[in-house]
Amino acid sequence: MLILVTNDDGIDSPGIQALVQAMSRIGRVIVVAPDRQQSAVGHALTVSSPLRATPFYREGTMLGYAINGTPADCVKLAVSTLLEERPSMVISGINHGSNTSVNAIYSGTVSAATEGTLMGIPSMAVSLDSFNQASDMTLAAEVAHSVASRLCDLGLPAGTLLNVNVPHITRDAFKGLRVTRQGRSVWNDSYDVRKDPQGQPYYWLTGDFVSLEPLPDADDLAVAEGWAAITPLHHELTNVDEFNRLKTLNLAL
Amino acid sequence: MLILVTNDDGIDSPGIQALVQAMSRIGRVIVVAPDRQQSAVGHALTVSSPLRATPFYREGTMLGYAINGTPADCVKLAVSTLLEERPSMVISGINHGSNTSVNAIYSGTVSAATEGTLMGIPSMAVSLDSFNQASDMTLAAEVAHSVASRLCDLGLPAGTLLNVNVPHITRDAFKGLRVTRQGRSVWNDSYDVRKDPQGQPYYWLTGDFVSLEPLPDADDLAVAEGWAAITPLHHELTNVDEFNRLKTLNLAL
Repeated sequence: MLILVTNDDGIDSPGIQALVQAMSRIGRVIVVAPDRQQSAVGHALTVSSPLRATPFYREGTMLGYAINGTPADCVKLAVSTLLEERPSMVISGINHGSNTSVNAIYSGTVSAATEGTLMGIPSMAVSLDSFNQASDMTLAAEVAHSVASRLCDLGLPAGTLLNVNVPHITRDAFKGLRVTRQGRSVWNDSYDVRKDPQGQPYYWLTGDFVSLEPLPDADDLAVAEGWAAITPLHHELTNVDEFNRLKTLNLAL
Repeated sequence: MLILVTNDDGIDSPGIQALVQAMSRIGRVIVVAPDRQQSAVGHALTVSSPLRATPFYREGTMLGYAINGTPADCVKLAVSTLLEERPSMVISGINHGSNTSVNAIYSGTVSAATEGTLMGIPSMAVSLDSFNQASDMTLAAEVAHSVASRLCDLGLPAGTLLNVNVPHITRDAFKGLRVTRQGRSVWNDSYDVRKDPQGQPYYWLTGDFVSLEPLPDADDLAVAEGWAAITPLHHELTNVDEFNRLKTLNLAL
């Protein structure tokens, strides 16, 4: 079984190394990942410039390719062109920082798994609820291994991926796996306004993550309570109730 | 009424100029848009570098600001920081090229409208089904005006935007407005593999847009038939049926 591993923190990040080790216990692993940090790129694609694929070695062994593009680029290029064999799974992560609630729409980690499902391949995104690059990845890797081992047997429908978020806690405090849904927390954005040496303003994104309404089984709440949150996501974006309501309005030009 | 206009083709594109004219018939318009082409950036945010806002003039009048960022950056920065008044609507477009089916997830035009709805502002994305920069925008502008005039009165629920796609046809051939849902066409990706002067390969994204299964009221089919497709989208990504099924499986680590 061939497993394609990617991420959005870049091919050199500690998170992807932990994921490669965990996936190597399941099958053959090939890494095709961005050559640098690509956080918050969302589902971006590189269309107006070409991509390069640089063979990536660690301790004398070629692990795969570093790509000058986004996580979605990596999956598209790998599956369509670079790999001689179609992967059985696409596993993205382990991301530094959780991708719960609205973060799923900004996340390159999730977008890579989305791209896998769009190509008909069982796919999973894994994130750890800590931005610290030195965080212990042991629990997140164990969760990734546990879920990935069963990913192809879960019977996920086409187009649905698993978005897995793991708390940054000790093994003793960990409560286990829990099936969740996307929470409703959002960012309350603000910009830090600064002046450059010429006195001209520039703006740096900041903000607070705020919970709008408590939702039962929300992914962010489950992680805060010590669970690894497993959320099935798809990209059927139609608000079906609203579609049915608007149809009754007889909109004319 | 203040209307925030943005796009992903850049502040100088013909599409945004046509949209500004159309929106000026409804209220005061301010433009905050990327300073260059940002197509296929998806819901990307600029987090690791600062943004600049350059006043943008046309014929001696300041229309707004050009931003060195993505469409989502533009909406966040405008609403949270640049504008002294909260806009009543966020209107994004007119995009050159349709954003139906899976294209909605890659689209910076749609992501700008998504950002507006996440901030609680009625929002709409408008796209014309033609990549030709010299396309006649008259019909698309008329559709944008017609829908935007009623946008605040439609009673859209929080978090739901309208994704409007207009066919590139004559006014006589145009069939009118139609409420639709996101279609299921996808890209069958391939990469054009080329060699640089040093003989090293590089890869350029290409591909065919293919219809997987006909879906009644699909946005892409409606546009092909001559309708302006109006699709209510939201970013509730949970596959609820799958969430309910997985909960019964009692997943353990």
